[in-house]
Amino acid sequence: MSPVNLHIDAQRLWQSLMDLAQIGATPKGGVKRITLTDLDRQGRDQFVAWAKGAGMHIRTDAIGNIFARREGLDPQRAPVMTGSHLDTQPSGGKFDGAYGVMAGLEVVRRLNDLGLQTEAPIEVVAWTNEEGSRFVPTMMGSGVFSGVYQLEPMLQQKDIDGISVGEALQAIGYGGQATTIAVGAYFEAHIEQGPVLENTKTTIGAVTGALGQRWFDVEIIGQDSHAGPTPMELRKDALLAASRLVVEVNRVACTFPDNARATVGHLRVTPNSRNVVPGRVDMTIDVRNARDETLSNMVESLRDAVREIEQACRVQISMNEVLYFPPSHFAPHLIDAVRGAAKQLGLSCRDIVSGAAHDAVYLARVAPTAMIFVPCEGGLSHNELENARPDEIAAGASVLLNAMLAAAGVHATAQAAA
Amino acid sequence: MSPVNLHIDAQRLWQSLMDLAQIGATPKGGVKRITLTDLDRQGRDQFVAWAKGAGMHIRTDAIGNIFARREGLDPQRAPVMTGSHLDTQPSGGKFDGAYGVMAGLEVVRRLNDLGLQTEAPIEVVAWTNEEGSRFVPTMMGSGVFSGVYQLEPMLQQKDIDGISVGEALQAIGYGGQATTIAVGAYFEAHIEQGPVLENTKTTIGAVTGALGQRWFDVEIIGQDSHAGPTPMELRKDALLAASRLVVEVNRVACTFPDNARATVGHLRVTPNSRNVVPGRVDMTIDVRNARDETLSNMVESLRDAVREIEQACRVQISMNEVLYFPPSHFAPHLIDAVRGAAKQLGLSCRDIVSGAAHDAVYLARVAPTAMIFVPCEGGLSHNELENARPDEIAAGASVLLNAMLAAAGVHATAQAAA
Repeated sequence: MSPVNLHIDAQRLWQSLMDLAQIGATPKGGVKRITLTDLDRQGRDQFVAWAKGAGMHIRTDAIGNIFARREGLDPQRAPVMTGSHLDTQPSGGKFDGAYGVMAGLEVVRRLNDLGLQTEAPIEVVAWTNEEGSRFVPTMMGSGVFSGVYQLEPMLQQKDIDGISVGEALQAIGYGGQATTIAVGAYFEAHIEQGPVLENTKTTIGAVTGALGQRWFDVEIIGQDSHAGPTPMELRKDALLAASRLVVEVNRVACTFPDNARATVGHLRVTPNSRNVVPGRVDMTIDVRNARDETLSNMVESLRDAVREIEQACRVQISMNEVLYFPPSHFAPHLIDAVRGAAKQLGLSCRDIVSGAAHDAVYLARVAPTAMIFVPCEGGLSHNELENARPDEIAAGASVLLNAMLAAAGVHATAQAAA
Repeated sequence: MSPVNLHIDAQRLWQSLMDLAQIGATPKGGVKRITLTDLDRQGRDQFVAWAKGAGMHIRTDAIGNIFARREGLDPQRAPVMTGSHLDTQPSGGKFDGAYGVMAGLEVVRRLNDLGLQTEAPIEVVAWTNEEGSRFVPTMMGSGVFSGVYQLEPMLQQKDIDGISVGEALQAIGYGGQATTIAVGAYFEAHIEQGPVLENTKTTIGAVTGALGQRWFDVEIIGQDSHAGPTPMELRKDALLAASRLVVEVNRVACTFPDNARATVGHLRVTPNSRNVVPGRVDMTIDVRNARDETLSNMVESLRDAVREIEQACRVQISMNEVLYFPPSHFAPHLIDAVRGAAKQLGLSCRDIVSGAAHDAVYLARVAPTAMIFVPCEGGLSHNELENARPDEIAAGASVLLNAMLAAAGVHATAQAAA
């Protein structure tokens, strides 16, 4: 049961990623493989073919999640699972999601190379519709698997052309019958999609959890007036109020502890004319924190700021919550397995909290879970220019291999053979 | 030459305004009479017909300005002129511009009623294309008359359909031959288009001049990044920088003297997505002041703020000046004539600086000039709901009548007859 010190086949993993990226390849070097389209089908077919080639057995469930299984020595044990998603953003890259699935496939291929058998079965999963760019919500497949969402309403979700998830699944032949099973452990390898590992020259991020998120729609109502004739003291300037709120959002994020982040990403001014004092602003606020209590305190501080700004700027501000994800905390023994594997492989490693949600966030509700982050160039993701270094892509998959073996148990004879 | 104490015919003036507002009337009670369209022609024809009915002689110059003249007793004297414009914004109201022309017409009608003759001739002018909504620049007709613009390039300005000012003038039959003449004095009556008179319960604004204006296009370049995975200290948030600048723009306007005003009316965020830290903002700044030196000091203070914000937010900010109007100072003896007329009529009056530019701002470059403001409801203008009280509309025109008589000189015999 002690970790071993194995490496995956770096060249084979990279080639699989590059081959998969041909399906939906864009001229700028990215990938457009929107969920449940024919290109998604092609990507799924490729994964299934490769998994079968590696001797795995395929199951598909009713929301289209694909599970590729390599049996273990102990049929009583729940599988040690890994994976991610094959769908992309409309202007996506080669690594987001695809990396986690191909790394899982490479783990199995490498076990095959070495003739290693595990105590627990190994499963590699491709979750349906992580991106949410065609059908909301995001992380639909893992959400259904984890009981966050009911199956039926998800099958009825429609895209802008009125096509439902259920219809799209039938069209590409991935509406299956597999039932949900217990999961012994879940790992997910992923590019960081942020700048921390690159900035600190660290190869492996041992992800301890994911930030909680609270999203708000904010509406600020002032009064349009002419920029020339209206003295400052008689204005009800919605953009001035909005700007003070943006500054407060930043202040809150910079002064609260526990990986506090807060962002105004969207802001729209009405009437948005050069010489008219704006009468209305619609904007969003995205607040994140690793601790739920601190997350609440951040929001309370913002609500206080909103009341002060309303008074100072003579405007009305409404702040409507549209999303709440509580913070996720991953399983300490699996985080330890990731840290241990990195150490044994001689890789630099640091603990990191995921700022974004991933399928692993939902899996953490039903199974011990951990994630492995590797750096991506410039922290860039959801972009055709998304990039990562082959050696770091390989390092993350080797950590995955060893951490999964630690969780699944390696048969003693086979381990000696390695 | 001393001011007399006459009232215009309030009912006739109001009826003329309402009749004129039928030409281009909108369902919401506003007026859409875009410059040099057939509706503008109808408005011009109506004014010309009324002016001829009042015994006036019509001249039109090459940019389409219409001058209606009532002769004075002294053929050597330059005319005392009044007027404004007949064109409107696309969603304009009944009073902006039309009031100044109809008030001038009513002055002449009332002089006719009373059999009064003036020493200097009286001219009522309708300037071409004040609004600038079809052809830039704004205040084209008065700008050409005052030598701010050359005639030929203005005739070649095109609308979005490629029709030139010269072609549009020919099409409506208002391209004339009249040459520019000296102006003895110029008055313009106008709704305030701001809230000051209404808020202070004042009927007459004796306008002492117009604010200088400096307009800027501002471009802020940061870097897009994911709102979740990007720690605050690694962000280059263009919207945070923009918001700090909006707050500084307001601070500058609130702390500098001399009727300082400053506005960000337009702001556009890129990519403007809820969970992406904005990489770019484009915005405008409009800075106004009654004194040119203070105007420059405000801009310098903003430039200092821009340098600080660039450092603090790790962004690049460019600030490009796109318009400069120096402050206008009206003629003290004509401002006195307005104040005196209001006093003699028993009307509340206060000095006011025009925050917006008007045709009078250009006339002030070539003739002694003053303006008379009357309140408008809620300070609202450039809006179909623009409104004003009949008694205040009448009061402004009576002030105009008496101030013009003071400037033009009333024949002694006639004055006694009044």
